[in-house]
This record gives sequence, structure tokens and C-alpha cells, in this order.
Amino acid sequence: MKIDKLAGERFKEKPSDCVIDSHALMLRGGYMKGVANGIYSSFMPLRRITRKIENIIREEMDAIDGQEVQFPVVMPASLWSESGRYESIGSELMRIKDRNDTPMVLGMTHEEAAVQLVREYANSYTKYPFMIYQVQTKFRDEARPRGGLIRVREFTMKDAYSFHTSQEDLERYYDICYKAYERIFARAGIPEVITVASDSGMMGGSISHEYMLLSPVGEDSIAVCSECDYRANMEAAESIIENKIEGESNELELVYTPDIHTIEDICNFLKTPLEESCKAVVYQKNMTDEYVVIFVRGDLDINETKLTNYLGEAVHPAVITEDCGLFAGFIGPYNLDKEKFTVLFDKSLENTHNLSCGANQLDHHYKGLKISRDIGDVEYIDLAKIKEGGICPKCGKHSISISRGIEVGNIFQLGTKYTKSMGMQYLDSEGNLQYPIMGCYGIGVGRLAASVCEAHHDEYGPIWPMSIAPWHVQICCLRADDEECRGVSDDLYQKMLDDRMEVIYDDRNIRPGAMFSDADLLGVPVRVIVSPRNLKEGVCEIVTRDKSVSIKVEVEKVIDTVKEMIAERLK
Amino acid sequence: MKIDKLAGERFKEKPSDCVIDSHALMLRGGYMKGVANGIYSSFMPLRRITRKIENIIREEMDAIDGQEVQFPVVMPASLWSESGRYESIGSELMRIKDRNDTPMVLGMTHEEAAVQLVREYANSYTKYPFMIYQVQTKFRDEARPRGGLIRVREFTMKDAYSFHTSQEDLERYYDICYKAYERIFARAGIPEVITVASDSGMMGGSISHEYMLLSPVGEDSIAVCSECDYRANMEAAESIIENKIEGESNELELVYTPDIHTIEDICNFLKTPLEESCKAVVYQKNMTDEYVVIFVRGDLDINETKLTNYLGEAVHPAVITEDCGLFAGFIGPYNLDKEKFTVLFDKSLENTHNLSCGANQLDHHYKGLKISRDIGDVEYIDLAKIKEGGICPKCGKHSISISRGIEVGNIFQLGTKYTKSMGMQYLDSEGNLQYPIMGCYGIGVGRLAASVCEAHHDEYGPIWPMSIAPWHVQICCLRADDEECRGVSDDLYQKMLDDRMEVIYDDRNIRPGAMFSDADLLGVPVRVIVSPRNLKEGVCEIVTRDKSVSIKVEVEKVIDTVKEMIAERLK
Repeated sequence: MKIDKLAGERFKEKPSDCVIDSHALMLRGGYMKGVANGIYSSFMPLRRITRKIENIIREEMDAIDGQEVQFPVVMPASLWSESGRYESIGSELMRIKDRNDTPMVLGMTHEEAAVQLVREYANSYTKYPFMIYQVQTKFRDEARPRGGLIRVREFTMKDAYSFHTSQEDLERYYDICYKAYERIFARAGIPEVITVASDSGMMGGSISHEYMLLSPVGEDSIAVCSECDYRANMEAAESIIENKIEGESNELELVYTPDIHTIEDICNFLKTPLEESCKAVVYQKNMTDEYVVIFVRGDLDINETKLTNYLGEAVHPAVITEDCGLFAGFIGPYNLDKEKFTVLFDKSLENTHNLSCGANQLDHHYKGLKISRDIGDVEYIDLAKIKEGGICPKCGKHSISISRGIEVGNIFQLGTKYTKSMGMQYLDSEGNLQYPIMGCYGIGVGRLAASVCEAHHDEYGPIWPMSIAPWHVQICCLRADDEECRGVSDDLYQKMLDDRMEVIYDDRNIRPGAMFSDADLLGVPVRVIVSPRNLKEGVCEIVTRDKSVSIKVEVEKVIDTVKEMIAERLK
Repeated sequence: MKIDKLAGERFKEKPSDCVIDSHALMLRGGYMKGVANGIYSSFMPLRRITRKIENIIREEMDAIDGQEVQFPVVMPASLWSESGRYESIGSELMRIKDRNDTPMVLGMTHEEAAVQLVREYANSYTKYPFMIYQVQTKFRDEARPRGGLIRVREFTMKDAYSFHTSQEDLERYYDICYKAYERIFARAGIPEVITVASDSGMMGGSISHEYMLLSPVGEDSIAVCSECDYRANMEAAESIIENKIEGESNELELVYTPDIHTIEDICNFLKTPLEESCKAVVYQKNMTDEYVVIFVRGDLDINETKLTNYLGEAVHPAVITEDCGLFAGFIGPYNLDKEKFTVLFDKSLENTHNLSCGANQLDHHYKGLKISRDIGDVEYIDLAKIKEGGICPKCGKHSISISRGIEVGNIFQLGTKYTKSMGMQYLDSEGNLQYPIMGCYGIGVGRLAASVCEAHHDEYGPIWPMSIAPWHVQICCLRADDEECRGVSDDLYQKMLDDRMEVIYDDRNIRPGAMFSDADLLGVPVRVIVSPRNLKEGVCEIVTRDKSVSIKVEVEKVIDTVKEMIAERLK
């Protein structure tokens, strides 16, 4: 490929709407172009990268006995009604109607389609286990697409589905897939990806893991233990709080607190620590708008995922109206009408006393609250977010730190959620009908490309690993108007083409600075620089994009040297 | 791959809703499964076939300097409004709304997306020519999906778009692409595909060709000249009729014709040939329901594509109401209210006299019509379908025959329809703004797979060419319970895997008949049969799916023989 015919603009200025580097660099480098909010077209360099990623994924999926199949993008809504997800998933599921007014959906994941494909076939235990996967376009109508390819609405995903006759067999295969995923990320150039326990959310099932690239621009918060191997998505991390009742339990006492509305203010006012307060957080159920009041220790926050999982339905932060019966800023558990609201207590309030809290009347709080005495026996539920410095649920030390991460893949043990709801059964060896147990395994291709860029770039552009680089080597002819320089460059290019090397050739008559900044944006790992000055000594310069290598090599040895460098980096 | 874990059912009975062989065989062979009307999921054998086809296409597109890109499946409607197609295309364009009520479409073709991607980039003549292509899922909400993968709603397509600064350059590249397409179809196993001139329809532009596999199950009718190389889609074929006025021109005469409603009936009644009649065919414009009355010689039919192109808008067969002013069964050109209707005359009526026709009143026809005398000067337009035995527009002989064909690809010279409407311009070498000229080039991947199956199958299954076969070789272990037989088979399988051969292995303990009929359905080109009887002589049987080879080969030589057979067939 000659760069002067490569479609796509490269430019210097960072686009104003880019908040993360990979987004800015992939726009600046002519990798992609926005078509609509969260929807992109790819130019050739990005398409070459994603195809290489797709092929790495295919090889690893094939190596663990995956069968590549293809499901439709457009599916009948009836299929999603079978599993119940047509009703349970929010507006991120794109619901459409065809010309006959038949409700359809755009696939955002394909559990239903996977079950539909194999439910007649896999009618006997002898057909198990098996895994089917596809690499395909998906659409998720995200409310807030962001960060270029990190969170888009349309994306290419590898999604795999395995079917088993026992939980043990699922776990055996889950472990195999777990390792295949590690190989995929290592081969794609980010071996530093870690796994974290995750919440299964709308997928159903129990055990699941996410593969996270730690990065300050990540959307996910991850709890990592510095003392043991515990790692979990904040959404899934258990919050452990050890309270101890010390000293006297004071009486419950009403306090006049004009203009004090937050838990921080009341603690300041009373000169007590946040840990000695009982904060109210209010949500509403999406379906009914019913209020859900959660009480939590004043220094902690609510984990919406845990709340949603506990309630079994979606919620949103409450809008507190004048006549709803709640006094915004003064909500507390004492004298609260428990018939009108769903009232929950977080585990952080167990074994506490002398708490301050709202008094459910204007300009008043209580102090001296002891829930067991003043409210009675309540159930304490884990609804709080784990904190920096919190207790590790595995080793029990105060050793939790919170990092940000980009989720580049996930694996789920689904159980029988889909096979039961969709009536997929097989005859076991004793002739009894059973529901197969499923696992599912996803990787977003574009997000993985962007993540590699996040992990490996400098201010001038991406530094692609050889395995997924758009081209392996770039030739820069620094003086296209110099006969010898052009001759040597042309000759190297032709020989590389003849050897079927992945080469991109810049023979434009432009300044070296402009040529190098374009090359930096393309991020090709090995660069051969041909210049009249070096040719006087009979050499070319070979440098790597990551700056680890910068050598002069005799012209005749350039191709062999480059080949060696490529082979070494593809190992 | 072992066949006992290959997902997909194979069965004997032809599914009742299949009218063409490829559809029935691909269902019976476990290649695919219907998900909704015109929407299928693919099992592994079909996915392997389509991936091989995709790779052949990619190689040939790359070889003519194509740059692989990717456009979105979901696009904003505003993009399609720029070209005017959001309004002009019917309900086959899937129009949807996202969560913010923004109108979107599902891509059925990507001219708009192609222009959007490159319109800023290609702002100078120095960037031209270039071609971009993608392989991607498309959705076309067909009213009548049929024939399995022949006409579906969701499909994978390779679509390519080239951009040029002159018509000559477009024609030069068009010719290059024309030949690349011939190579693609030859490599995919159907070199017998022919090209025909075609109508450009909704794509805009002028010159275009379709690649047709002649087949009785094809949806298209093709006019082929037996005397020269003229070949055209019926939709695009010019109808040439040479009339000669012979004998006396009779007077126009009203005839009482009770209960006579068709042109055939009136000709029978008057004992005159159909050629001496003037038939009325009535359509209505889709937008306004305005009536369009076309008169044509009684032995000919109207070509709706020509009519649509002439009118510049879509039409449908008319519903003739009592008060519309037309007398169904008695419509004729004499005394017809030309203010109320669009009235057109086909070329077949030029130079005629003594015609019978409707009289625009109940139970009456005219005879003796001479249009030039009785109606006056009218414009004669080519609106008729070409006929079997008709005149070839190229060599002028009465040598046209009509065949059926499956359209497996098409290429269009688009001109500036999209660049003009979407405001894409470049500076030419003299500093003037110009609109680039486009070509576009499509191949449906699934339809191509089905077409190869149509062309190459027997009653037992597909006979895949080596180039796109799901596997290259199948091992049939006829007696899995016989130790030697299984040992030799296992050994051959392992060696083939070690040599990275594409092998599928049937080691199930089933009857040879069942094993062979499954093998026939998979259509793998080379089959190695291992049986105790042959092993007594130290040999295996090697047969080809197309029955051209059936040999016995010493066990040690099986692998080399198979490799040779594969290599030979991949040449």
C-alpha cells in the first residue's frame, strides 16, 4: 500500500470532543470517522487491526473446540419474549417493526438465538458439551456513548455460548475459556489485563468474570486487594463493615437543625464523625415509581447494581415531591411510614448506636439513634459500595484499593436461565429430560483495539504491537525527488511486496517532519528510513515505533533485518 | 472436527416449504436454520463456506487496490435524506427510531456511507482514483423472501465503491472490476456465470452489469441472443418491433361485444391475430394514485422497470373503481379523457392499422383503429417486455431467447448522483471544484454459496468445489467398533490434523448407509473410507463427492494422495 492513496485524513489538532487519548489518536490518524452518536465507520488501518484481532480470537476459539456460526442482527421480538428479556431489558434494546408490523429487535447479545439454533439438535446427552461462537455486528442503544470505540452503540463482538450437562462440566470448560481469554489478550498485546469477579446483571446466572485493562480512563471501578488475589468489579464487591458498640448508648433526642440538609452538615453541626450517622438514600422503581428508602452509614455510598439485584427490578434516583411523604434533607428511619415506602437497611448499620439521622420533619434531626432499640429487628442487607481501604472479602485485611478499568471481555456461567425459559431439553443417559447448563463468553473487538491503543501510545500516536498492527513495516522515502533515494525505496518496497510482507510505503514529496508525524499516527512497529545522507554510507535507518531500536543497516541487509524483527515480535 | 460434535441436524425428508434444491439441501444438511421469514442463522459448515467466499472476494478486491473499510449497519436517516433515497426507496428500507426518536435506517447498500466517509479526505484530484469496500451484514425488508439464501431479508454482502475524476477513468476501473468479478466466480466454482446488461434502478447511474448464473430457479429473466453476444436482463432489454402497414386501412367501427373483456377474447371474436390489437394496461402512481394507461400491441406485456424509469416514480397495478372514469375491459385510446390520466403508447404500436381496442363504454370495442389517423401524433415509448424470438437490439436478428438466472453480483457506473446530492467535491489540477464520479460493485455472499449449491449438487447433497468446501477431506470409519479400523482412522485423522489439513472425521458407530448420506449432505470433495474389508488388503478407499474418482490406496499413501487431490483442485 502506498500512503498517498490511503483513504483517511491525518491531522495534528486534537478534536475538541475527545476526552481519551485512543479516541483522539484514532480520529487524528484516519482510523475512523463518526457517522452518528456512538456509530463509526472504519478506514483501512482500523479495519486491518480489527480483522487481525478477529482472527486471533477465532484461532483461540477454534483451539478450544468452538464452532463458528452466525446469528442474525435482526431477530423477531418473540424470541426475546421467550426468555423474558424483551420485557426486562430497557431502552438499550433497539425495538423495531418490520414492514408487516412484526416486532423485531437488533441483537445486543445472542443467548436467545444460540438456544434457538441448537435446541432441536442437542436433544441427547451424547451431543454435549459443545460451544458455538460468532463474530458479528451488534447494536446497543446506549444513552451515553463515549470515548470513541470504548463505548459505542454499534460494535463488532465475538460472542460464544457453551452447553453442558452438568455444572462440573460447565466449570471445567469455563476454566478452559478463561485461559483462552488470557491468551487472546496477551496475543493482542495487553497481557497486563486482569480478571475480576463481576456482577451477572441482565445476563442471568451466577459466577462471572470480567477482563479488565487497568486504566484511568476506564468506566469501571475495580476493588483490588493488595494482600491477596481478590479482585472484583465494584458492582459485585461485597462491602464488609465491622462495627463495635463502644461506650454508653445515648437516648434518642430531637435536635433543631435549621438549614441543615446533608449528612455531612449534621455531623459537622454535632461535631461527630460521619461513621456515627445514618444516611438516607432514595430511589424510585422504574416500573411503578414507588419510593425505595435505603439507610446506610454516613460515610458510605449505595451500589445501584446490588440494589437492583436485591429488588429484582430497575431503579432510578428519586425525585422527591412535596406531597410524597418524605422530607428531603430530613429523612430518617424513626417514625418513617414503612407502609408507604420500601425501607432497607445496609449492613454497615449493624452493631451501631449514637447515630444522627433525619427526623422526618422540617428542620429537625435526631441524635442518639440505636436501630435495634428504636426501630426494632431489621434485616441488614449488603447494598453499600466497597471503599478504598475497606476490608477484603477474601483475606479480611483492610487492604482494598479502588482502580479504574476498561472491560475488554467477560465470561459468565449462565446456568439454565435460557434453556428453561426457552424449553430446551435433552435426554440424559437414564432417559430423563434435563435442561442443559450454559456459559457465555464475550469480547468487543473495537473496544479491544481502542484498549490496546490506550495501553500503548505516546503523544504522537498509537504504538501497535506487531500482532495487530495495520502493517508490519513502513518505508519512509525522505527525498522522493532524489533519484537514488527513490530508487532504493522503490526497490525495497517491491521486494517486500514480492515477499508478501505487510508494508506501507510513503513516497510522497513532503517534509520529513510531516512524513514522520503521519508514520507516528499509523503506529507501524518497524520503520525503514531511506535518505540521501545515509545512502552515502550505503545504509538505511531502521527504527521501531516504540523507540527501543534505532540502527543503521546496509541496504542489502534491510529486508532480512526487518523480517527478523517482525518474526521476533510475532512470537 | 469430529462429526459427532458438529452442531446441526441432518435429515432425509425434504422440508415442505422448500421450492428449490439448494434451500432444501442446506436445511437437510444442517447448514442453517430459519429464525424468521427471510432471516437465518448459519451452522458451522455454512459459516466455513461463507468465510472462504469472503476471503476469495477480499483477495480479489485487494488485488485491484481495494481498501477494506467498514460502514455501520445502523445509519442516521439524515444521511439518506441527503441523497434523496430516504424518501424515494420503498418499504424495503427498514426505517427505525432510536431511544431519542432520531430516525435511523438499516443499511441495505452503502453509497451514502461511502461518500460520508471520504468526502473530506478526497478533496484534491491527487487523491484519486481509489476504491473502498466492506464485507458486512445488510438488511432489506423484502416483501417476499424466498428460496432459502437466494432472497433473504438479512444477508452478508461485499459492497465496493470507487471514486474517479473522469468517466474514462471510471470505465478503465469498471473493466478491471468486471474481470475481478469473473475471477471471483470462477474461483468460487461457478465459472459459467455470465454477464448481462442491467437496469440501474434505484442505484442511479447509467451503465451496469449483472452476473448471472443461468438456472431454472432464478428469479431474473434474461434475454440472450443466439447470434451475437447480446445478453441483458429483461428489465433492461430494449424491445424492438418492426411493423409494416400492409393492405387497406379500414374505417374505425364500433362493435357490440357483450361479455368480452380481454384482448384475447376480442381477437377471437373478430377472428384477428393478437398483433392486430391495441391492449390497455393500467397502473397507478404510488405517491398520488394517479392512473397511468399504457397502450401496447396485444401480444406484448409491459416491463414495469422501464415504466418506472420513464415516469421517474414507482407504480403499482391499478385498482379500477366504478367512478374513476375507466371502463375495465373496454379501455381504448379513442375518446379517452387524456386530461384525467397519463396516457402512454408503446413503440409496438408504431406503424399499425386495423387494430381492435376498447371503446371506453360498456360492452363495446372498436375495430379498424389507426392511431396516427384516429388519435393523432403520439409519442411512442419503449415500455414492452422483450419476447422469446424477438429482435436482438444488437445484431437485429430474430434470435432472442429468454432464460432464467440468479443474480450473483452486479457492477454499476453511478456517475455523480451521490457526490452531487451529498456535496462531495474536489479541486482539479486547474483549481476548479468538481464532483467525483463513482462506481459501485456488489456480491451477496450467502446467495453466492446457494448458487454454487444450485449449480453443483445431486439428489443426495451439495458437491462443493474445493475452494469453498466446508472441509477438504472427510474420513469415514465404517466400523468404529473394530479395533484396527478405528486405529487406522484415528491415526489418519491425527496426522491430517498435525498437517493442518481441513478434515472432518466420522467415527460414529452407525450404519455405513447413514454415514454416507450424512457425508453426501456435507458435500466434502474428498472422502477416505476406512473399512475392515479393505484393511485386509492394506488399503483405504478414496472417492470424490463428484464421483469422478474412486480408487484404492495403500494406507501409508493415503495422506499424500489426498494432499495431491486437494492441491490439484485448489489450483
